Amino acid sequence: MEPLRHLAFVPWRLTILDQTLLPHEERYRDLFDHHEVAEAIAELRVRGAPAIGIAAAYGFVLGVRALLDDGASLDTAVGLVSDELVRARPTAVNLRWAVERMRKACTRDGHVLDQSGIDEFSSRLLSEAIAIHDEDLAASRAMAEHAFPLLENVFTILTHCNTGGLATGGLGTALGAIRFRKEQGGGVRVFATETRPLLQGARLTAYELERYGIDYQLIVDSAAASIMRDEGVEAVVVGADRVAANGDTANKIGTYALAVAARQLGIPFYVVCPTSTIDFRIAGGDEIPIEYRRGEEIALIGGVRIAPDESRCLNPAFDVTPANLVTAIITERGVARPPFEESIARWRGQGS
Amino acid sequence: MEPLRHLAFVPWRLTILDQTLLPHEERYRDLFDHHEVAEAIAELRVRGAPAIGIAAAYGFVLGVRALLDDGASLDTAVGLVSDELVRARPTAVNLRWAVERMRKACTRDGHVLDQSGIDEFSSRLLSEAIAIHDEDLAASRAMAEHAFPLLENVFTILTHCNTGGLATGGLGTALGAIRFRKEQGGGVRVFATETRPLLQGARLTAYELERYGIDYQLIVDSAAASIMRDEGVEAVVVGADRVAANGDTANKIGTYALAVAARQLGIPFYVVCPTSTIDFRIAGGDEIPIEYRRGEEIALIGGVRIAPDESRCLNPAFDVTPANLVTAIITERGVARPPFEESIARWRGQGS
Repeated sequence: MEPLRHLAFVPWRLTILDQTLLPHEERYRDLFDHHEVAEAIAELRVRGAPAIGIAAAYGFVLGVRALLDDGASLDTAVGLVSDELVRARPTAVNLRWAVERMRKACTRDGHVLDQSGIDEFSSRLLSEAIAIHDEDLAASRAMAEHAFPLLENVFTILTHCNTGGLATGGLGTALGAIRFRKEQGGGVRVFATETRPLLQGARLTAYELERYGIDYQLIVDSAAASIMRDEGVEAVVVGADRVAANGDTANKIGTYALAVAARQLGIPFYVVCPTSTIDFRIAGGDEIPIEYRRGEEIALIGGVRIAPDESRCLNPAFDVTPANLVTAIITERGVARPPFEESIARWRGQGS
Repeated sequence: MEPLRHLAFVPWRLTILDQTLLPHEERYRDLFDHHEVAEAIAELRVRGAPAIGIAAAYGFVLGVRALLDDGASLDTAVGLVSDELVRARPTAVNLRWAVERMRKACTRDGHVLDQSGIDEFSSRLLSEAIAIHDEDLAASRAMAEHAFPLLENVFTILTHCNTGGLATGGLGTALGAIRFRKEQGGGVRVFATETRPLLQGARLTAYELERYGIDYQLIVDSAAASIMRDEGVEAVVVGADRVAANGDTANKIGTYALAVAARQLGIPFYVVCPTSTIDFRIAGGDEIPIEYRRGEEIALIGGVRIAPDESRCLNPAFDVTPANLVTAIITERGVARPPFEESIARWRGQGS
């Protein structure tokens, strides 16, 4: 399984695939410093929590190196770069986590470095950014391999939102598992929901499926239940934004409806996510805060107004699927089955 | 309950509210002959099966009168007008039905009429068109009244697609029942699904709810299940495109998913439709043909391409909800409860 090279670092620039232009245009952009990386994150040219973290780590390297070159002290460089990157998307947990990890790699006193000192130091930082990226790819591979026995005899799969290479370091969670299943042979057919309001399914998942040569059809979200029934869907595979200690799963709005339909139709419902997504401090789904986003995301599509009044929209970005509708949770550590209170507890403190 | 005056006839013109411009612009258009009415139907300025039938009946009057004025024989006039109107949307059952009924009202020999003959004849035709319109309004009122005891103690309602005045002669089926419930007092709160791909909920239902002063919020289709659960929805009320003799109900794509979620959550699921929607020749839902429409409806929104390849879209326009998920079917004749094979059979041959 070859990663999507949408975040490619060669000294000293980060080349990204601009996701705002997908699927119409496949344009790569070279980013040379932390300003450009922060802009790319803020403008959603890079999105998906793990992908943002990785881009920020590379942006940290570029920014600190550039400021040291300009004669800044290390403390100053680290402070300026960290602040600007973290501000790019204030609520993104992986972004803060990645920047914090890069800061910890800067274990050096604060005085000004000469050129050979800068080169050596930048290379050391780069190793840490690459490690963050590599760990994400390794986790994706492990998730895909653990999911494989569950999908081995499955031909028709339904998925939601974008959980592929574009959202991660290049392989993905749920979509990575589907891609791995396809690459093992035997054929696979995928139904991808368009995923309103932001259309990550139509824009990004369809792009990835097309690239991987996977047979797919895009559907409106509301068609998922009848298509599961009428087209013989054998598994629903989704990602997760946050999983509680009891297995209740917060994910993109619409996930709960898919789980209800899957249960009604006797179709297995799989959640694929890294153990870092499991929040053991939260006992159950009712403690997971749900983000309500601007009504404009519903009332406008591509800048075109489709509804009379955006203030009359209710736009929850996520919903919570109760653990009793989840067949299995698949992480880089293995497969958990109900009762999840017990099966996922063994991963406590082992997350990345 | 005052009808929406979106189809208003004064001799000799039909004034319509142009639905293609809603909700941004409330523009009325005067149509003076059958060409203009056929164009309005073909371009979806008038849509919704009952509304199309009513517009065609008025168009028939305008067209036949204009051709008689130009010296055509009655046979010629009726033939030309009927053909052009029916061609406007070939698959619309109500359109054919209304034109056929208007033809039957033309019981007269084929020779050329003088001016007083034309005036008298046109007035007779107009009475028939008005009767078609009035019968639709009466059916809507009766549906709303029969639904009322079921909705009387319900505050929070979820509905799908547009089933209001705009789709009918001015009152509606499911949305008419919700409006009537609101007008009886006690307050009501409505969640309206946007209804992808064509967004009838966002464009038309939201417009109507706004006009009627009903407290509502627009949601993406995939949010319906979690909103039913999290916002305390007490009833789901939808229309129908075709109901089989056993109560299986074909309706706008997404209806089945709503019924599944309603059952899971113990929320009543009501279908509101005239008896003319019940097709007693069809025993069960698996015999109802499902229309698959162009992928472009998914791949393009407001002319903006959102997906990589429209040929990779699967776009069923309707789905079938099995009768066992339906709590009651409400028509102008009364309320039917399971088993529907028996409860709706009493309406056989009594439809409008």
